[in-house]
Amino acid sequence: MINMERLKAGINKLTSIGLNENDGHTRLALSEEDKKARKLLVTFIEDLGLVVRVDDFGNIYGTKKGSDPSLAPIMLGSHIDTVPDGGKFDGVLGVLGALEAIESFIETGKPHRRPIELVAFTNEEGSRFTPQMLGSGAVTGKFSKEYVYKRVDNEERNFADELQTIGFMGEDRDRLKKVQNFIELHIEQGPVLDEENISIGVVEGIAGFSWFEITVKGESNHSGTTPMKNRSDSLVSAAALIQELNRWANKKEDGTVLTVGKINAQPGSVNVIPASTIFTVDVRIYDSAVFESTLSELKQLIDDKVQALDTEYELTEIKTQKPVAFSPQLVNLIEKESKEQKYSYTKMKSGAGHDAMYMNEITDTAMIFVPSINGISHSPEECTSWEDIEKGVNVLYGVMERLVE
Amino acid sequence: MINMERLKAGINKLTSIGLNENDGHTRLALSEEDKKARKLLVTFIEDLGLVVRVDDFGNIYGTKKGSDPSLAPIMLGSHIDTVPDGGKFDGVLGVLGALEAIESFIETGKPHRRPIELVAFTNEEGSRFTPQMLGSGAVTGKFSKEYVYKRVDNEERNFADELQTIGFMGEDRDRLKKVQNFIELHIEQGPVLDEENISIGVVEGIAGFSWFEITVKGESNHSGTTPMKNRSDSLVSAAALIQELNRWANKKEDGTVLTVGKINAQPGSVNVIPASTIFTVDVRIYDSAVFESTLSELKQLIDDKVQALDTEYELTEIKTQKPVAFSPQLVNLIEKESKEQKYSYTKMKSGAGHDAMYMNEITDTAMIFVPSINGISHSPEECTSWEDIEKGVNVLYGVMERLVE
Repeated sequence: MINMERLKAGINKLTSIGLNENDGHTRLALSEEDKKARKLLVTFIEDLGLVVRVDDFGNIYGTKKGSDPSLAPIMLGSHIDTVPDGGKFDGVLGVLGALEAIESFIETGKPHRRPIELVAFTNEEGSRFTPQMLGSGAVTGKFSKEYVYKRVDNEERNFADELQTIGFMGEDRDRLKKVQNFIELHIEQGPVLDEENISIGVVEGIAGFSWFEITVKGESNHSGTTPMKNRSDSLVSAAALIQELNRWANKKEDGTVLTVGKINAQPGSVNVIPASTIFTVDVRIYDSAVFESTLSELKQLIDDKVQALDTEYELTEIKTQKPVAFSPQLVNLIEKESKEQKYSYTKMKSGAGHDAMYMNEITDTAMIFVPSINGISHSPEECTSWEDIEKGVNVLYGVMERLVE
Repeated sequence: MINMERLKAGINKLTSIGLNENDGHTRLALSEEDKKARKLLVTFIEDLGLVVRVDDFGNIYGTKKGSDPSLAPIMLGSHIDTVPDGGKFDGVLGVLGALEAIESFIETGKPHRRPIELVAFTNEEGSRFTPQMLGSGAVTGKFSKEYVYKRVDNEERNFADELQTIGFMGEDRDRLKKVQNFIELHIEQGPVLDEENISIGVVEGIAGFSWFEITVKGESNHSGTTPMKNRSDSLVSAAALIQELNRWANKKEDGTVLTVGKINAQPGSVNVIPASTIFTVDVRIYDSAVFESTLSELKQLIDDKVQALDTEYELTEIKTQKPVAFSPQLVNLIEKESKEQKYSYTKMKSGAGHDAMYMNEITDTAMIFVPSINGISHSPEECTSWEDIEKGVNVLYGVMERLVE
């Protein structure tokens, strides 16, 4: 199957770029580190004899031609950018794992009609330029070129200029076109596989989510002169509401998760009763059949609870995305491959977004997960055992081999 | 007694300085507006024939000499700086009310042995330079000159330079020295008098307070990939703790109030479970006999609750001040005066700090409160009826007259 030593060496070499003293990895999209990693990746692809292409969003492709150039390619890949102080394998595994699978396949000398294409998408993490998955979103028609080019980082530098600066501004004619299938190998970034001691996650889809902001109203007053009974404290109300939302999600048995990640009390002085408290809600719902009804139930709960608290609120939508269901044929193929290789596996859904989410809009798509130790991700402590990595790449290899036959 | 039309005209004239379009008043300490108001105040004092003095903290004094220059003065006053968009009467009433009381007294031509001294303290609000009450704290030995001079505003401009710039840097020899009594007339800034329809608050003391910061610990994780049961969410724990603290204060029957005014979840992203949540606690306790025991009870409650939540926390002290008890003789005198003038009154304590708190350290001190309509303060909506203002200044006049006799 695959050559594990070669893969290890490649991953170690690429992830030495942007490696911090705390073992975290920082290769923000279109940064100097991203540039270095991209150049190394291009070298890797060229050394394999593949044809390199870079499109007008900086997405990098490497193509192994098949015997029939009229056929659409089997595409494999992920991303190589990271969050600040991110983990070793997030994204990189899907790119270099695919490269290893292709190299191993080339070594077999087997003929194949379909082209095989590697891809590394730009700015998957969204840490430097929001939103996430700009590169895959752009080539699948989710974002316009104008929108992507005008995205700015914290220092007001825009995407287009920065892409130009690092020398990865390609041509629009080099974007991906028709794609036969897209398979993304990725670390789980959650605890399920690790807890259950399972090596392969056969990913059936991606959870839908809704992000919104709630502003709970109250009355600002002096903290020292206002008796308790005279108060309308927005933060005390918000605390009760957050408790209620958490209880609700804990009672759900369909995997629904809810997070309040950001909170702010206004005016925000130690000695002033907060007039308003604003917090975000991130709710993820796996099953598309109940997505809308679960959201309605949640919003009704918020309304009821705020009324019971005898106060008022505003709800502002940030972003909502319905659950994504991957290709059942590809999911079955991944399952079959895992079974034949005698790896422990489970069907599961992804709670996080991935490039595969947008690719699913234009082609049959699926994902393969490998365990994240203790479920940790976006952290220097992120880790996956080399044993599980080998299994994941072997499944990717097997699925690719079946698809190009 | 006093001349209400003259007082009204003086208050209206001074509070037209820094008056905003929304009816709020902004005369931040040592600002251009504060300078204008100070100059007007000096004119008022000089027009009355009093001797003006400015000390090295910018505190302004006006002295009506008595027949015995060896005696310590009866001092009356407050402050003329405001918070941003503050109310009309906060501070100004205590200064111009005192000026009116002195002017009315002068008009009676009554001889008196003790000097009568007006004072307007610098930077009572603490909105521009923290902490509050810098001017009175400095002359009563609470803060060193070096400490006060190095206080900086948001734009890194320091107290000493700004005091110099507005032309109110006086000499240390002009500070207040021995003071016989200090009486401060002030708006209540709370709802008690207004709710009970009482005109005069006979202030027996100032609540003690403790300010601290609590950091509740949790574990940062991806909001989409971490099942509810695997979470250690610091904000959910903090919300439960805030609820508990609020319930505790609501059950107290001794006037204890508790406020969480500021909260922050880290790292503070919509899609990350907060690793830590930091919030402030402001607890005010009126009775010095139970101050320490109530604080201990509160801290035990926090400890117990955090343990029940199966998490950890850190508590960092910001500032603690024991309850202040004013001079019983002066409190009795204010009560007697209110009674004789047939005004409704009640003995009460102040939940907010005032210059009188520091003055109490060096001399017999007390305060007179007048109602704040709906308890509103530090807001353009702050208001006190002219009827209540008249009553308050009449009580101040009467007490002053008794004290200088």
